[in-house]
Amino acid sequence: MASTRGLLIVLSGPSGVGKGTVRAAIFKKNIFNYVYSVSATTRESRPGEQDGVDYYFVSRDEFEKLIEQDALLEYAEYVGNYYGTPIQKIEENLAAGNDVFLEIEVQGALKVRQKMPEGIFIFLAPPNLQELESRITGRGTDGEAIIYERMQKAREEIELMQHYDYVVVNDEVEFAVEKINSIIQSEHLKVERVVDKIKADIHKYFQKGDESR
Amino acid sequence: MASTRGLLIVLSGPSGVGKGTVRAAIFKKNIFNYVYSVSATTRESRPGEQDGVDYYFVSRDEFEKLIEQDALLEYAEYVGNYYGTPIQKIEENLAAGNDVFLEIEVQGALKVRQKMPEGIFIFLAPPNLQELESRITGRGTDGEAIIYERMQKAREEIELMQHYDYVVVNDEVEFAVEKINSIIQSEHLKVERVVDKIKADIHKYFQKGDESR
Repeated sequence: MASTRGLLIVLSGPSGVGKGTVRAAIFKKNIFNYVYSVSATTRESRPGEQDGVDYYFVSRDEFEKLIEQDALLEYAEYVGNYYGTPIQKIEENLAAGNDVFLEIEVQGALKVRQKMPEGIFIFLAPPNLQELESRITGRGTDGEAIIYERMQKAREEIELMQHYDYVVVNDEVEFAVEKINSIIQSEHLKVERVVDKIKADIHKYFQKGDESR
Repeated sequence: MASTRGLLIVLSGPSGVGKGTVRAAIFKKNIFNYVYSVSATTRESRPGEQDGVDYYFVSRDEFEKLIEQDALLEYAEYVGNYYGTPIQKIEENLAAGNDVFLEIEVQGALKVRQKMPEGIFIFLAPPNLQELESRITGRGTDGEAIIYERMQKAREEIELMQHYDYVVVNDEVEFAVEKINSIIQSEHLKVERVVDKIKADIHKYFQKGDESR
């Protein structure tokens, strides 16, 4: 029997909620050996960033070729740069039985949902909007109008939560990590994912029994 | 807003798989404060068993009255004695937001599924049928024919697995406990269970914002 296909795990949530921090904490220990899906981008690499680890750094031409070839699960343009999710590595890893972990913006996650509805979509939510405002405000020196605009955007994104499977509130990074790991491990225990394996065992047992009779 | 309703958790599996041991291990620590659903029975109490803790010990007349009143989620008769699951305590606890834990035979679990399809149904499976045979054989001095019959029954019960939500293989009690806790905790994180709470927070935040404008 072929090995069981891995799970595609998509972690998303509004800007400022702490997706990157939670993802980094998960991969610091990575006790369940998730494979991180590295994005492709046309932006310049920053000091310390490694090609193929933090991002695949590609030229604009190369990126547009990926778009033409339908080789991206989703992509978007921010501030003049492309960002996208290459499909091939994900497919290879899932086929090999590895769980693939994707950390992505809300709009991107919804595009992934359309292409791979069988993924596990986890929405990282702030403890409450007041707290999110504090986090956004704490980041810099944005004026009141800009903060209001960002909060409106957060509201819109939170309302897209219903297209996800699970919601994890990011109150403490450590708890959020634990919850995300719980979700993924329990998804592996769903009946439809193990039923074939167990039926094969029954078949084997009774076949052997009949032969020895 | 009313507190969130608790979850009904149903742990089941073939005879000999170790349901009782796993349940006892969960309740030894009971870190998530599950409420154990105590069954009613007409059999005599054994030394050390406490009424209302291990079972509700009732007379045959009292039990038949519960049946008539439709006060049991399910019931069955084994070797001349009734066993059943009183519905009222379960309802009270779920309404109060407590998770209620039920450990029950496969046939009983399927009856519960019909009445409370929203429950979380966990099937405890043996590592393999050879192992289950060893466990059953190890229990006593049953002849080969009886063991074969019991294994056929186990096969039938395992084939009913598809009516459950999750399968936990009981390889090590400690791991099984961990997996069951993971399942229950991740079920609490499903979008449909938290969406109302988060929408209420959004409403509160923007209402306050509008008032201060």
